[in-house]
Parts: sequence; structure tokens; C-alpha cells
Amino acid sequence: MTWRRRHVLATDDWTRAEIEQVLETTKPMLEVLSRPIRRAPPLRGRTVVLFFAEASTRTRVSFELAARSLSADVVNISASGSSVEKGESLLDTVRTLEALGGDIVVMRHQASGAPYFVAQRSGAAVINAGDGWHAHPSQGLLDAYTLRNALCELDGKRVVIVGDVLHSRVARSDIEALVPLGARVTLSGPPTLMPAAWSGGAPPPGVAIEPNLDRALDNADAVIALRLQRERQDAGLIPSTREYSRVWGLTEERVARMRPGAPVMHPGPMNEGIEIDPAVAHGSRSLIETQVTNGVAVRMALLFLLATGEAARTGAGAPSLEAVA
Amino acid sequence: MTWRRRHVLATDDWTRAEIEQVLETTKPMLEVLSRPIRRAPPLRGRTVVLFFAEASTRTRVSFELAARSLSADVVNISASGSSVEKGESLLDTVRTLEALGGDIVVMRHQASGAPYFVAQRSGAAVINAGDGWHAHPSQGLLDAYTLRNALCELDGKRVVIVGDVLHSRVARSDIEALVPLGARVTLSGPPTLMPAAWSGGAPPPGVAIEPNLDRALDNADAVIALRLQRERQDAGLIPSTREYSRVWGLTEERVARMRPGAPVMHPGPMNEGIEIDPAVAHGSRSLIETQVTNGVAVRMALLFLLATGEAARTGAGAPSLEAVA
Amino acid sequence: MTWRRRHVLATDDWTRAEIEQVLETTKPMLEVLSRPIRRAPPLRGRTVVLFFAEASTRTRVSFELAARSLSADVVNISASGSSVEKGESLLDTVRTLEALGGDIVVMRHQASGAPYFVAQRSGAAVINAGDGWHAHPSQGLLDAYTLRNALCELDGKRVVIVGDVLHSRVARSDIEALVPLGARVTLSGPPTLMPAAWSGGAPPPGVAIEPNLDRALDNADAVIALRLQRERQDAGLIPSTREYSRVWGLTEERVARMRPGAPVMHPGPMNEGIEIDPAVAHGSRSLIETQVTNGVAVRMALLFLLATGEAARTGAGAPSLEAVA
Repeated sequence: MTWRRRHVLATDDWTRAEIEQVLETTKPMLEVLSRPIRRAPPLRGRTVVLFFAEASTRTRVSFELAARSLSADVVNISASGSSVEKGESLLDTVRTLEALGGDIVVMRHQASGAPYFVAQRSGAAVINAGDGWHAHPSQGLLDAYTLRNALCELDGKRVVIVGDVLHSRVARSDIEALVPLGARVTLSGPPTLMPAAWSGGAPPPGVAIEPNLDRALDNADAVIALRLQRERQDAGLIPSTREYSRVWGLTEERVARMRPGAPVMHPGPMNEGIEIDPAVAHGSRSLIETQVTNGVAVRMALLFLLATGEAARTGAGAPSLEAVA
Repeated sequence: MTWRRRHVLATDDWTRAEIEQVLETTKPMLEVLSRPIRRAPPLRGRTVVLFFAEASTRTRVSFELAARSLSADVVNISASGSSVEKGESLLDTVRTLEALGGDIVVMRHQASGAPYFVAQRSGAAVINAGDGWHAHPSQGLLDAYTLRNALCELDGKRVVIVGDVLHSRVARSDIEALVPLGARVTLSGPPTLMPAAWSGGAPPPGVAIEPNLDRALDNADAVIALRLQRERQDAGLIPSTREYSRVWGLTEERVARMRPGAPVMHPGPMNEGIEIDPAVAHGSRSLIETQVTNGVAVRMALLFLLATGEAARTGAGAPSLEAVA
Repeated sequence: MTWRRRHVLATDDWTRAEIEQVLETTKPMLEVLSRPIRRAPPLRGRTVVLFFAEASTRTRVSFELAARSLSADVVNISASGSSVEKGESLLDTVRTLEALGGDIVVMRHQASGAPYFVAQRSGAAVINAGDGWHAHPSQGLLDAYTLRNALCELDGKRVVIVGDVLHSRVARSDIEALVPLGARVTLSGPPTLMPAAWSGGAPPPGVAIEPNLDRALDNADAVIALRLQRERQDAGLIPSTREYSRVWGLTEERVARMRPGAPVMHPGPMNEGIEIDPAVAHGSRSLIETQVTNGVAVRMALLFLLATGEAARTGAGAPSLEAVA
């Protein structure tokens, strides 16, 4: 199937076939990463610009390793130390990077929707690496890959997402990747940290809300703990991190309510002892390090698909999976 | 013609032949940039150090892409996060980078003359990527390349530069690149933002001052708008940015005073709506994105020529243009 | 001899044979650095993460060039702009980098012992690039290489280290590299900047304390000046930098007390005019720039040895020195 999308902004309008194509393309990428020399040639001579207006280690480095593993050139731009400090507009920065030869712009921005704005007005392919509270599609896809690999298939499986759903682009992107693959998602967390419309009775299709975490976990097939931003306490949205941990933290007793061996995930960076107990984070159910490794491969798949799509549109020779093999 | 200069500090003492050699060398570099795999081997194994003590996106990234396109290794140093924070002197930093194997140091510094200081005391080739108000020679050369390409030749052509000439290293380097190629330059802008000696009656050869922008633009062959730093308003040098925009902003009516199709340029980053109207910035006369693309190629030409010159001096095998072709 | 150590944390428990193996391995690395194309293939496909939580230019760039010269991929992480700002723990950061595929983590950290903590809990090989006041082993090894090269051998030679020994990880690592090779070390500096236990009568084996600098230098075979941090004055540990310079600064008269031609070294960045006179820093005895060049080669040797050791443990094909030749 030829890849048709020019950008990866959010997966809210992706078909199941599109999501599956990303997951299928991830497999040969993992094989590349397992080689002694972790490198394949399909993006040689192309430039991937990593434009991170918000601080990040893992996502920025993950994309950087993904791009390099496909032999792309990588240019890093962070907000500090760049012309953004001179008051340059977002669009100007990206237009410049494009004129400089950036084929793909991977961007993280504090403003929800910023990657859409850039994608509409620039010729480069745009990958959203997190925009405000809105979306973080590569995280959703890597969580879907990781879960499907652990559970064999997602159809009919029930995945619990626990924590600060309201402010979480990860929760939104997880839902948008998991539900089309057949999973049902149960959200659990403090009412103050749940979208009002959803807890008021209208969650998205495939999603249910269960305010009691123990009940949510009963017989679940997997759980994803969200990071608690400490500023939520200052904002009065939770009484204290200690209280939060007592009620919403993933302990060994709690995760034992799930099906035997049901996996535990977290997008990182973790607050160990708050939303997740260290024994769970590093226990036998934990897929948290696997998520990180899969993240590089999923991002390779996205970069690869965007490049094949672009080549198909322009009639240029498309990089094939054979170039990876 | 063998390249003889060891550094690119300013073009104020360059001959027409030297400037033309850079522009001629830019053409094969643009060809490299148009390839599916934008890479040629002539600087393989050499290290280009990008030492930017002032914030920059476009110039830093432009040099980075130029160096990589010629297969050089690139090391980025910014003032923050480097030993410069420990109080290390400019010279010590550069001497260290040189001992580490930096063949070419590209530097931007807030102090006019800083690159001269380093060039005199270090063995590395130095390219000035902007020093205080003094010079930004690669910008002058890329503007000359872009204009000559648009106008076929520069002999007898009249180019208007409008805005804050006083504080502009771009204006100075534009003059130093355009006048030797036969162009005449008309400067226009607020008297408070014009060098006193020049507006007092002694502009450099080939340069005229016309305080009335409309008259300056009449029948001009091209215009370059300079960036207005917002701090000029705080300093009382302009009444307000709004007033500045009304009197000195490039609008569609104003640019229509030039010859038909006469191009509009800007070194970026633009303040759209202040020194340039968005309709002009993105209109059919605009060469602003072309400038960015040409900038990479001109910087490749400079890096290439410095490397050939060095090789000729040391008797080493010189990288030839054939290595690019 | 097969390399057995998994990490380079400090050389306090290294055997003479281990130190000599590093120095022997440095020689072919210098040969690589002298080639027109400074690159050899042994670390191709491996990722070296440079995690610098403290500001640094020379050490960071030195490791970056070392890793690239052996064809490794390099990922830079600094504390600012990374998840460290989000309050992520040191261990989480490193675990993530490891899951991302970092084979070797080179780290600098303000906390003494931080690299040990990471090495115990992570699967990556860790190189300590400076931890608090504790150790900076690659500096000690490069100083040992530089001195042995200058003096032919170190057995029986007497090396003076002058300055702020108390706060100096360089002094500690120099002692730990020089003494096992047969050198004797004489420490000299203000009593307030000398470890109390040592000046109280129990310096380490091979080390003597001589509070009079002139006497310490008489007939010495070499001298290493330590950097004086200006905050020592604010802390009341020295009366003033001017007074410090008068009593402890290396002048031409002072270094003339050593054996003829005895070399002068400094780890950089220097405070010229304080701990070292410019005429000495740039005079004929100075090996300061040689130290920088040797630093890249010693770090290549360390990276290479860690990779061969890892390959020997896992049964994978080990990169051999032939891959370098």
C-alpha cells in the first residue's frame, strides 16, 4: 500500500489500515536496530530538522537516533539560542529551515495546533512530536506497537489509562491509536484531571470512565500510567502528591488485579513513588524500557513512510523496504 | 585562479575578481544541493567548528548544512553551556578548538573585530559569520549572488538598502560586495539610523543617500529591507514601530515604483508588518527564500575555496571542483 | 592483553599494566588523527552519548571528536533543555539513553560519585568525564601520556602539581595515573587549598607536600599548574587573585628552577596572569596545546578499549587495532 499522508499531526482521522501499516513497517526497523551496525540507507542525503521549542530529552534523542539510523542528516534547533529568541515567528523559523533544505520537520511546541499551522504553510513534511495538551502521535503509535506485541492482538483487549488525562497529549494519542485497532480504553483518575465533557457522560467511542482505580484494573489487559506534573498540586487540582500517590499510584497490589502478566507502561519520565511504585516500574510486568526501544523503531517507520510517500508523489525513486533489508 | 586568502573576515579589501570567484564557485555547489543525495566529498575528514557566541538559527544552520554537504565534520559550540561561561577568554576557546583539530572556525560574536583577533593568533582559517555592527561577509556575498542571478549582471544597476543602516553589518557587507561588481547603492532610512559621516556628505564610493524612500525606489533595480531591532524604539531612535512602518515599510505601492519585476530581498528574520508588508514578503518579487537557499551554496563555496587555498599552501592534494562534480 | 574493565570511573585501582595499555593504544589513535581524513571504522554503528550536566567546551568536544574519529554516532545531552529540567532523576535519564541504544555514556556531573551510581544501575559502559572534586580519569591519562612522551619514561621522575589541590579532580587523577607509572609527585599550594589529611602528614604513596613552591620546583622534571577558580577568593580561601599570582603563579624565573627544558602543563582553561604567566603558557616549555591534541587520542583509546572489552565479553567480533591501521 502506498503511503498517502504528507504529515503526522495526529492520528484522530487515521484508518485502522494506516495505523497497521506503521506497525508493520516498524518490524524491519527493529531488525535494523538489532544489527551490529545500526544503519540503513533509505534517507541518505535528506535532512531532518528537529525543532524542539519545549525541553525534551527522550523524544528528541529518539527522533535523532531514528533519523540517523536511516542515514538522514539531522539538524537540531532548540528555542533557546535560536532566532526564536529574537522574536522570530514560528512560521518564519520553519520557512527558513525549509528553504535551507529541511525535508522533514519534527516539531514540539507548547501551543496546541502549532504543527498544523506549519504544515499548512510550509512545503516540508511535518511530524508532531507533541503540541500542548493536544497530541503526541508517535507516542500513541509506539504504545500501540508495544501493546500489540505483548498481547498478540488488541481486538477486544481492555487497556486502563490512569492519571492526569485532562492535560495529557499522550492519553489522547493513545486512545486514537488503540481504539481503531480494536481495544477498549478505561480512563481512571481524579475528577479534576478528567475532561469535563468525558466524565459528564460523553467519552469518545471505545472509551469508558471508571473513577475507582481498583475496579478499573480488575481483569484489565494492560495499564498505562501517566506522568503527574507537580504543578498540578500548586494549581489545587490534587490535594498533594502524597495523597495522589495513595489513591492513584500503581502499586504491586493494584497491578495484581489485572490479568496474569498484564503489562504496565509509562511514557516517561517517571515520578517513581508518585504515579508508579519503583517495584512496579522495574518489575517483571514493566514494558517501560521496551517502549523506549520501540519508540526509535516507530519513528523510523514514520520517517520512512513519509519519504516513500513524498517520492511516490514526485515520481522520484522511492526508498523501498529492501533498502532497509 | 588559486585562492589566496586564508580567512573570510570582511570583503572590504577584496578585488572584483575574488568576489566573482566566490560567485562562480557557488554554481556547482547549487548543483550539489539539487541532487537527490546532497553531498560531495571535498572536505571529508576536515572539522568545521561553528562557534556562535550570539544566538542564531539561520546562519548557524546554513553553515552547518554547507559544511555537511561537503562532507566535513561539524562541531557546534554556543556560548551558553561552554567554557565561555567559566570566564575563558575568546582566544583560549579558539586555541583549544584548533588544538582539537578544527581546520576552519566559523564564528559569530557580539564584539566587532573579534574574528580578526582570532585569525591573527590562531592557525585555523576563520570565517566571520557576523561581528557586532561590523561585517557579515557571507551575507553580502549571497546577496550579490542572488541579485546578479536575478538581474543577469550588476554593472550599472541601482540597489536600494532601506532601514537601520547604522547598526547593520548586513548593509556594510552588502555595499562591500555589490559596489565592486559595478552596482550603485542608494541608502534610505531615518537620519537617526544612518551613519553620521555618511549622511554628513561622505558616503563610501558607489553609495548615495536619499532620505526620501519613494524617491530612492523610483526606477531602482532592486531593494533590500533591513531588519528593525525593536530595541531601537526603546533607545529613542525611532518614534514607534508603527510610525517606522508607515514611513519606511516596504508596501506594494512603494515597491511598484521600482522597475517592473525589480526584486525585493531581506536578510531575515523579518518583522512582517514593520519593515516589510506580508504581501511584499511573500509576493512575486520576493527573493527572500531564494536568498536562504543561495546562502548554503555561497557558504559551501567559501569553505571549499579556503580548503583549496590551504591545500595549495601546504602542497597537499587540493580538493578540486571535480570532486564536487 | 584483553581489556577487562567495563567502565572508566577513576584510575585509583588500576594496575600499571592497565594504564600502560591505554597509553600504548593511544599511539595508533594519534596516527589516525594525523591522516588527511581523520577517521577509522572500529565504532561504526555504535552510539556514544555525551551527557554533560556541567558546562564544558574542551572535554565535551574532545570526546565528541574522539567518538567521531572512530566512526561512532554521537548524541549530545546537556542539562539545560533536557528532561533533567523536568525533574527527571539522573538514573532515569541514563536508563532512557541506554534503552535508546547508547552503548557508551560519557558523563560529567557536579556530584562526586554520580558516574558510579549510573554504572552500577545501567547496562551501558560509563566514562567519567569529571565528577565534582573526585576524579577526571581521562585527564590523568592524557597528562601521563603527554609527560611520558616528553620525558621518555616516568620512572623516578618528579612532577610538581601546583595550586588548588583540594578542589581539583585533575590533581587526584594525575596522581592516580602518574604514581603507578613510577613518578613521584610533589604538591605545592596554599595550605587552605590542600587536603587537610595530606598536609597533616599522610599524603598518598608517592606523593610529597612542599609548601614552598621554589623549593618544590628545584630540579623538578615537570610542573602542572591547576586552574584557580575565582570563587575561592570570595570564600576567603585566598587573600586575592593578585596575591595568589605573586606567590603561586608560574613565572619564567620560577620554571627556570626545574631541570633544563622541563615541561609545563595545564589542564585548561587557563587564567593567564593568575596561576600561569602568559610567557610561560605560550613559551618553549609549554605542552598545553599538545595536551589538548593528546586528549582526543587518549579518549579514542578509552572508547576503543571499552568496545573491544564489550565485544570479548559478548563473543561478538571485536574491533581490532587493525581496523584502525
